[in-house]
Amino acid sequence: MTLPKPSSIAETIEQIARNGRAAQRQLAAMSSGDRAHALMLAAAHLREGSDAILAANVQDLAAGKENGLAPAMLDRLKLDEARLEGIASAVEAVAKLDDPVGQVIDQSERPNGLKLSRVRVPIGTIGIIYESRPNVTADAAALCVRAGNAAILRGGSEAVHSNRAIHAALIAGLTAGGVPSGAVQLLPTQDRAAVGAMLSAAGLIDMIVPRGGKGLVARVQADARVPVLAHLDGICHTYVHASADQAMAREVALNAKMRRTGICGAMETLLIDTQFGGSTALVAALLDSGCALRGDARAQALDARITPASAEDWDTEYLEAVLSVAIVDGMDAALAHIARHSSGHTDAIIADDDGAAAQFLNEVDSAIVMHNASSQFADGAEFGLGAEIGIATGRLHARGPVALEGLTTYKWLVRGSGQARP
Amino acid sequence: MTLPKPSSIAETIEQIARNGRAAQRQLAAMSSGDRAHALMLAAAHLREGSDAILAANVQDLAAGKENGLAPAMLDRLKLDEARLEGIASAVEAVAKLDDPVGQVIDQSERPNGLKLSRVRVPIGTIGIIYESRPNVTADAAALCVRAGNAAILRGGSEAVHSNRAIHAALIAGLTAGGVPSGAVQLLPTQDRAAVGAMLSAAGLIDMIVPRGGKGLVARVQADARVPVLAHLDGICHTYVHASADQAMAREVALNAKMRRTGICGAMETLLIDTQFGGSTALVAALLDSGCALRGDARAQALDARITPASAEDWDTEYLEAVLSVAIVDGMDAALAHIARHSSGHTDAIIADDDGAAAQFLNEVDSAIVMHNASSQFADGAEFGLGAEIGIATGRLHARGPVALEGLTTYKWLVRGSGQARP
Repeated sequence: MTLPKPSSIAETIEQIARNGRAAQRQLAAMSSGDRAHALMLAAAHLREGSDAILAANVQDLAAGKENGLAPAMLDRLKLDEARLEGIASAVEAVAKLDDPVGQVIDQSERPNGLKLSRVRVPIGTIGIIYESRPNVTADAAALCVRAGNAAILRGGSEAVHSNRAIHAALIAGLTAGGVPSGAVQLLPTQDRAAVGAMLSAAGLIDMIVPRGGKGLVARVQADARVPVLAHLDGICHTYVHASADQAMAREVALNAKMRRTGICGAMETLLIDTQFGGSTALVAALLDSGCALRGDARAQALDARITPASAEDWDTEYLEAVLSVAIVDGMDAALAHIARHSSGHTDAIIADDDGAAAQFLNEVDSAIVMHNASSQFADGAEFGLGAEIGIATGRLHARGPVALEGLTTYKWLVRGSGQARP
Repeated sequence: MTLPKPSSIAETIEQIARNGRAAQRQLAAMSSGDRAHALMLAAAHLREGSDAILAANVQDLAAGKENGLAPAMLDRLKLDEARLEGIASAVEAVAKLDDPVGQVIDQSERPNGLKLSRVRVPIGTIGIIYESRPNVTADAAALCVRAGNAAILRGGSEAVHSNRAIHAALIAGLTAGGVPSGAVQLLPTQDRAAVGAMLSAAGLIDMIVPRGGKGLVARVQADARVPVLAHLDGICHTYVHASADQAMAREVALNAKMRRTGICGAMETLLIDTQFGGSTALVAALLDSGCALRGDARAQALDARITPASAEDWDTEYLEAVLSVAIVDGMDAALAHIARHSSGHTDAIIADDDGAAAQFLNEVDSAIVMHNASSQFADGAEFGLGAEIGIATGRLHARGPVALEGLTTYKWLVRGSGQARP
């Protein structure tokens, strides 16, 4: 492939964004039922196109092996009949979600007779920049289209053939359902300059959603002129309060760390109250499950297998079977540790004392704060949102799992009878 | 004054932001009633401090005259007893607004027994960068504090003495009411590098609100690494539909343009349907009121006083007694003109035909869309919000007039009984 020059990449992105804008207007004018129907057709085309998609995926896997992709990356990249069925089912699930567009958020009548209402509308054109997992191509497109948005997709180079095949199937179904093809566009180039052009396209693209590793998200946040719905680290804490039930603390902590260590809702730091009676059994259970523990001096005293934690450990998202452990002197110390080290994603308390739980829920300033539950529940589907385009750790627009509502904004409608302002 | 070097300005901003963060935590821990009470004390101190504030304002006015500030700017800058009473009353009005913090947005229970709720919380630390009008010092501070946020204020050089005096009165009242002084900080320097340091303070400042002219807002949008709640131009349209009542069209259009020409909700372009019967009388009324009209060829044919519009006129926010006028061939042409030229602030239709009105309200994609009302109603107080920190023309987080709700975000609370994720 001959790479276009940067100036022509910027022009390409502008043209794609303008196509998206035009398509989005048509999409917004469609009924909610028609958009849902088109997504059902897209799911059907994903199933019908499975041979082509899996063949494309084989190409990506072969290239990935040649390029020395790590086994975990290859596993993320890999599709099979079951995974593809999962992708198609997820598109159907999104089609069946309640459509937020047109919902009246609130309404009022002013003393002068003006009738005001706030009505949900699509955000517009949304750029999604993502890595490896080809399912994002279908997930993100479906969520955008369900809420009346145009999507501009920029997947990773390692999944380029899979993404193109999935995109082709989506488009075949969507256009059969009356959705203009510009509503879901996959960038025709893997040139990295295209990412820069998307990030600079203020006024042309309304929001960027980065889905990938730290490097990608950091680049997007540093360079974007377009508003970003960012997902930063999940440095998630579980605080085991003095009043915690010992069996519950063990079960929840084990799940929070070990169910899947590579997800953003996985616990990365365990704070054990010095007054908690089950500390030794708790750390032993974690160690026995195969987790490496790095502790402060008092934590190390609990078990000889615990190695010393360095200062960086408290700010590290391991995403593997490693956990930092600190012993804290009560609620205030736990809150102070979390305020200092949490990434604001998900933090949890295990406690039988309702007053302690209430204080924790009130004072911890993270997107998700839990009582007596595993932080691995931090997920749009688990929250009943049907799906998620990401888990937002920023403070504006949307926080925590973001699904359809987070892909809408609102406008004010004002209905009068000739009012002039005094 | 000796200006500190840029590096020490960045350090100054960092220290101010850290003070703000610490104060915000204390502010958030106060009861809503206590925050309201402190604002009532701040209003009382503004009244008690009127001599000092007015004396400081005289200094600013004298400097402004020396520096050749335009009369309109001097008028914006000027305070007197009545204006100061207005500022104090506005602070009291904000104190009396319903506090959004702690409101439960929605809640649900999952099949596994997890209880979810979304609860409004303060955004955190908010930077306000503004020009000339010293009332913003009190308005913005009051709104931020009411919703539990710390404010970092950076006013214009021309109002530096007035802003300091107002800030001193506010702080005297707020601290008497138990609010830490770090909750409302006025930058100690007018160095322009301080603005850059605020805009770069991602993670230290949670949101920037620019209030000022195009130059300021454009700089903020170009340079900010912190999310911005931006207010761009108000290129507001009024479309007079074929079915419009002629007297209503005249009254509303005159008000939309001429009540106050310098506000962002003022009409800048009038679109007259070719089928509307009262065109000649409508443009005559505007011309007779002292408004200059710039029209397309068909508009010019209505009245010899109408001069030709250039291509730029359709994209110009005049903010004075000048109006562009186009004759359009029906709804689709009006919608196309607005889609192309509106700044997305406020657009209105005058029509008796309810179907036409519904189509316009549905299809115009602006923050505020009005039917049979003057676009000059685009205002937080007129919308019943009590006050506004700005009118947002972006698409994320908040749109249109932004008051207390727009100064909050939410967190998810998850209450369990020991659930581990399968």
